[in-house]
Amino acid sequence: MVCFKPVGIVVEGLEKPSERGACRSRFEVISTIKIFDEFVDGLDGLEDYSHTIVVYWMHEVRGVELKVKPWGVERYPKVGVFATRSPARPNPIGVTVVELVSIEKPVVKVRGLDAWTGTPVLDIKPYDYYDVVKNPRVPWWFKEKWDEWRQKWKYEEKVPWLGP
Amino acid sequence: MVCFKPVGIVVEGLEKPSERGACRSRFEVISTIKIFDEFVDGLDGLEDYSHTIVVYWMHEVRGVELKVKPWGVERYPKVGVFATRSPARPNPIGVTVVELVSIEKPVVKVRGLDAWTGTPVLDIKPYDYYDVVKNPRVPWWFKEKWDEWRQKWKYEEKVPWLGP
Repeated sequence: MVCFKPVGIVVEGLEKPSERGACRSRFEVISTIKIFDEFVDGLDGLEDYSHTIVVYWMHEVRGVELKVKPWGVERYPKVGVFATRSPARPNPIGVTVVELVSIEKPVVKVRGLDAWTGTPVLDIKPYDYYDVVKNPRVPWWFKEKWDEWRQKWKYEEKVPWLGP
Repeated sequence: MVCFKPVGIVVEGLEKPSERGACRSRFEVISTIKIFDEFVDGLDGLEDYSHTIVVYWMHEVRGVELKVKPWGVERYPKVGVFATRSPARPNPIGVTVVELVSIEKPVVKVRGLDAWTGTPVLDIKPYDYYDVVKNPRVPWWFKEKWDEWRQKWKYEEKVPWLGP
């Protein structure tokens, strides 16, 4: 066992559970992270990055599903949880790439965080060139969903920086 | 406090500490991760991705440096640890994008992992389009080091999929 102490909390994030559904994409939500006092100096210089990786504990997840149908879609293959971003994983650690909106210690505002209000934050990392894969290969079912969401939520227009 | 149980271990990774230095880049090392028996079925379908994100506990890191000179370079600004990928962070959780080389349960081989032999693995996530930022902004000092390493380790030739 290895234990960690949160460095901050999502004081305003996604609402559960309706907001994860139909009304708006996570890229239309600005999330507010509050970093605890003892760690705020760790934020210095983060403003020189456009994006960051938020690592958090998905604290409301209960149980593990080792094999899952992605997004519960019936005609998708049942795959292992390590082949999905499903939260019901052995260690419910969330890793999300977000756009940095503003930093005013102790508050960091980001766009695109996939975490509910109240989520404990374990780490914030700068997104750098080592995080960019130019043409990642993904399964057909991921591509299908991506195309659906890309059009539905107007990614090209609203989050032009987003891959592939 | 939040506690996690490793799902696997890096049975063969970077050697410490010399290998992190001059002889070869982490992209020239194939690391071997062994997933523990109870979780191996979680790997099904991961082979359809070209890259994955390995989340691990940097178990040998001791202490936290809240402000750091990146890579110890004197003329670089002292910045907050959340603006660097320094391992001496409040929660020593490593997040590294790697190329998938092969999966033969319970063994996953990857290229580019920045973890020493013996490192406990907390999660494996597929790298998908939501992890791609097309033109991330980074500080001048990161760019400088990137250019140095890109040339020294021949990234264009050896890891053509790597950003920016």
